[in-house]
Order: sequence, then C-alpha cells, then structure tokens
Amino acid sequence: MKVLIDTMGADRGVETVVVGALEAMRHRDFEAVFVGVPEEIEPLLKGSGIDEDRVSVLPAATSILNTEDPAFAIRRKKDASLVVGMKALADGEADGFLSAGSTGAILAGGLFIVKRIPGISRAALTLVLPTAGGGTVFLDAGANMDTTPEYLYQFATMGAVYAEKVLKRENPRVGLLNVGSEEGKGDKRAREAYALLKEGTGHFIGNVEAKEILTDVADVIVCDGFAGNVALKTIEGVVAVVMNTLKGEIMNSTRTKIGGALVRPAFGKLKETFDYSEFGAAPLLGTKKPVFKAHGSSNARAIETGTYALLDFIENGVIESIAGEIERRGVRPAHDDQ
Amino acid sequence: MKVLIDTMGADRGVETVVVGALEAMRHRDFEAVFVGVPEEIEPLLKGSGIDEDRVSVLPAATSILNTEDPAFAIRRKKDASLVVGMKALADGEADGFLSAGSTGAILAGGLFIVKRIPGISRAALTLVLPTAGGGTVFLDAGANMDTTPEYLYQFATMGAVYAEKVLKRENPRVGLLNVGSEEGKGDKRAREAYALLKEGTGHFIGNVEAKEILTDVADVIVCDGFAGNVALKTIEGVVAVVMNTLKGEIMNSTRTKIGGALVRPAFGKLKETFDYSEFGAAPLLGTKKPVFKAHGSSNARAIETGTYALLDFIENGVIESIAGEIERRGVRPAHDDQ
Repeated sequence: MKVLIDTMGADRGVETVVVGALEAMRHRDFEAVFVGVPEEIEPLLKGSGIDEDRVSVLPAATSILNTEDPAFAIRRKKDASLVVGMKALADGEADGFLSAGSTGAILAGGLFIVKRIPGISRAALTLVLPTAGGGTVFLDAGANMDTTPEYLYQFATMGAVYAEKVLKRENPRVGLLNVGSEEGKGDKRAREAYALLKEGTGHFIGNVEAKEILTDVADVIVCDGFAGNVALKTIEGVVAVVMNTLKGEIMNSTRTKIGGALVRPAFGKLKETFDYSEFGAAPLLGTKKPVFKAHGSSNARAIETGTYALLDFIENGVIESIAGEIERRGVRPAHDDQ
Repeated sequence: MKVLIDTMGADRGVETVVVGALEAMRHRDFEAVFVGVPEEIEPLLKGSGIDEDRVSVLPAATSILNTEDPAFAIRRKKDASLVVGMKALADGEADGFLSAGSTGAILAGGLFIVKRIPGISRAALTLVLPTAGGGTVFLDAGANMDTTPEYLYQFATMGAVYAEKVLKRENPRVGLLNVGSEEGKGDKRAREAYALLKEGTGHFIGNVEAKEILTDVADVIVCDGFAGNVALKTIEGVVAVVMNTLKGEIMNSTRTKIGGALVRPAFGKLKETFDYSEFGAAPLLGTKKPVFKAHGSSNARAIETGTYALLDFIENGVIESIAGEIERRGVRPAHDDQ
C-alpha cells in the first residue's frame, strides 16, 4: 500500500506532518510519498530509522491558502502540493491521499482532480462522532453548502456503506438531522430529503434531533454542511464552556477545590473523548480514490492516527463498496449535477 | 397591567400553569386572565390567597395539538385556548399573552390573529443564552424554516432593540451565525444576509461561528430557525452527555468518587446555567402585541419566571421601540411577504 502525504498547508508546519506519518510507518506496513519541498522534507527522513525504500518525495513548491478561492486556486496553482498530490492519486501512483490543508481546496481538488464516483454529485466530509455505541457516522461535516435533497440521499447511501465497512455495523440505522422527530418537520430541503429516504432501500429510521447526535440513536446521521458545521462547532464550544464553568465553580471553595484535584483524571478522559485532534482525519466520501482531510491544527499524533484511518479505509475497500452500492441501488438524479 | 395565560397545551397540565402564574402574582402587581376550561381553572383560584379582582377566566374548550397543521388548526379551531386568548390580545383586552402550547400554533396565531408589526415579515422566537457577559440574544430559535436574507435582516433589527431595551446594552453588537469568520463564507442565504447587514445601519460585527455562541462574542446572534434549532438542541444534548460522562468517570474509582462528592455543588450550578426550564419563556418578536412561548415541559417555576419576563417586556415597551426603529431605519422588502 502506498499513500501520499501532503506536507504543506498544516498550521504546525512540515515537520509535524512528516514526524506523524513516520511514526505511523513504525507501526504499520505501507509506503509513504511526501509531497512538498524536498529540501524541507529530506532532512526529516534521514535518521528516522525507516527503510529508504519505503519513503519518497514528490516535489511541490507551494500551498493553497485558506483565504484563496478554492476552485480557482486548484485550477491555477499547478505546483501546489495539494494539486501535485491529487494528480498523482488520480493517475494511480498511490492508493490514498492525506492533507491537513484548506477544507475548501481539498473538496475542490477532490471534485476536479480526483473526480467523483459515477452517480455521486458531491463529496461529503465524514466524521465518526463518539457515542456509547461505538460511534455515529456524521456527514456532511461542513464541506457542502446549499445541498439538495438528492445530495442528502447520496450522503445517506455513502454513510451507510462506511458504517458497514469501517464500523462493522449490520443494517446501519440512517437518520436525518431535523428540527423535530415527526415527518413533515423541517425546512423544504429536510422535508423532501425525508420523502426520498423513506422511499429508498436503506434502513431509514426517520428524523434525528440535534440533542440526540451523541446518544447512539443512529449509526449514520446526514445533514447539509451548514447544519453539520453548526452542530459540530456547537459541541466544541459547549464542551469548552462546560469545562471552564466547572473548573471555575470548583475553584470557588476549598471543599470543591480538593474534590477538583481528585476528579482531574475524569476531566482528562472527557477532553480526550471530545477532542477533535484525537479523531485524526476524516474521509471525503464520494471521490474515486481515498482522500482524507486532517484538522488544520493537527499535531503529530493526529497525523499518525489519521494515517491509520486512511490505511483502514483503503484496506476495507470502502470506495469500491460505495460504487457497487450506487450501481445496485441507483441514485436519484441531482438537480444541478455539475 | 393585564396578561392572558393559556392554561392548555402544556405537557404538565392546567394546574402547573395556574400555580406558576399565581405564584408570580404574589410577587408582582398585575392582573391575570386564565384562558381555558372554567371548571378546571376556578377550583385552583379559590383559596390561592390572590384578590378575586385580580383574576378572571376566559372560557375556551379545547387546545391545538403538536401533531396538527398549525395554520389550519388556528383557522378552524375557534374554541381553542390559543385562538380565544390571542383574539382577546388582538382586541386590546389585555397587554400580553403567555402559552406553553405548540410552537407552530403560537407562531401561526401570532401571524394570523395578533398580526405583525408593519414592515416585519416573520416573527422570531428569541432566547437569551447564558454567557459570562450577561447573555446573548439569539434568534430565530426555531420558529421559522426557509427564512430569506431579508428576514434575517429584520431579526437583527428586532434583536438589537431587544438587547437595548431588555438587556440594557448600548450599541449592541450584532453577529450572523455562519460556518466561518470571513466574509464570503456560508450558504447562499448567509452570504446574502451578510451583504444586507453590512449595508445596514446596525452594529454588525460580522460572522459568528457556532463554537462562539456562549462566549459573549456578540449581544445579538441571528440565524435561520433550522440552524437555530440545531445549535440550541446540540447545547442541550452535549450538556447532558458531558454531565453523564463526567459522572461515569468519577464513579470509576474511589479517588474520583470522593472528589465527585466534593464537587457536587459545582455540578448543580452548571445544570442551573444551562437548564432551559430556568429560562422561563421566550418572546415571539415581531408581533403587534407581546406573545410569549413557554417550554412545553415547563414546571410551575418556569411559568412563574416566564410571566416575569413577559411583564418586563411589556413595561420596557419593546414592541413600540421595534416599530419605531423599523419606521426610522426602514427594512428591505421581503421576497415573499405573505
């Protein structure tokens, strides 16, 4: 197995990415192609103890900034690491691609360079949220705005395959994120998506309210990227506020201060559960080849676990299964299949 | 001051509503008109110790269910407490109206019976979220689906007046809930609303991400009701999961168990901060007369605090100020002003 690692565009720089991927190489058997500036990458490979045959460098001179228009930058910056790496992926030079660069640019590159699975209109960023039941597949996590009901239907199909192949769920329960549990609730998009999902052959369990996201009510939850972003960032914000509020309250009196010292391990566990850096990386479901997006602020550990997730994704043949499922079930034609 | 109290449609029944409102009457000087079945209400008033001159009953035979089509039910069920009460409000028989009934029916009744302030296209359910800075006005909390950019602009104007009049903020900072901080982020609605708000005369501070909702980054946050519902219900769900996770972790060892007993007061304070029953009730901003919606599962204490909020709202002349502001500033014409 050979994977492309984009060394540019991560908040913490080239070294963090390379160190994280090399650590993964110490634990799993695969080859890595580091995409970026050779002068920056090569010194990091030397003395790493990894066999030279397993690593190589694919030269790229620049990166795509968060502030650039993604579709425009992908077409124009031919020497950007994201473009060079995705072209190599599309040309079959490797089995997967991981980047901590701009989400918009990864989405644009996925659509225009790697291209979509036939029948799929949009690729969706897909997270596994922590639940008591071992996790819920959540998509779209924020890559697509103004999705149509048909896109949501496709997300449901892809999410169900992901839950089967990666989380090993049989007959995964698929829910639609909505403002109420009853049919007929929600905006126009949600009501139309409900009708499509109900007609479909999947295991649709109906609407899921945002308060149920972390309660293992479904194996897959689908939503528009705007709502997905709002839900995920609200989780992030609330966990931070709750931790701070509790810490503040605990430091208020000697009694609770002593208690606070004793419960510190519990706080650590909580932080870990909801810490997105521990999630490693998330697949962009819907592209023809495996594309993974790591958090921009990933540390080396997040790059390492993200690399494992990418390897599992390749080994499980998730994309082949999605393509097969789409061919078998068919998809509703999209309104504006670009 | 005289307020109408809808005794029907609350999850916990007539008694909870009447008891809560009577408790408020012991602390504040106002008259209450209880709308509902006289045989159910009158026994509760007797022996309450409240002067008979301050209470009266407005007969209504039925209620509107959550499962009914709101607009249809409002037009058809002439003897529903919500319809009877709102008609009395519209006819000037009282200064305000409080109900724990169906949100959809309250919104429909607000639009069709109480009617809107001239220039306002939609009424928005408005919460004050707890923050270190004393609260952030959040609208729409879930009453309106498929809002237009123009509605969001109107929500911003109304929210700013509410922040000035009720929270006593000078030059309130108005933010737009969006998926990123930069201009140009978001779906079509968010991008167009950004442009309108930037043009407007209000104190627009730009986009606010969902992780910042509870951090006092703005005095007013506006959003579509779908996103608003997702954000609020995610807060509810995360607080519950975090509390359970922490409790579970704490009970895992003797050390943390002892600590847990010591930090219990801090947990109590946290629960109170994020407990929506403590919020009492929320105004439907945009109607010609004060309409307040209490949580369906309100206990007597929530009805009591909700009644105080309604009295403050009337005393502060919020609606007159909104109408004045709309007349002064003008509003963008709505695309489909019904």
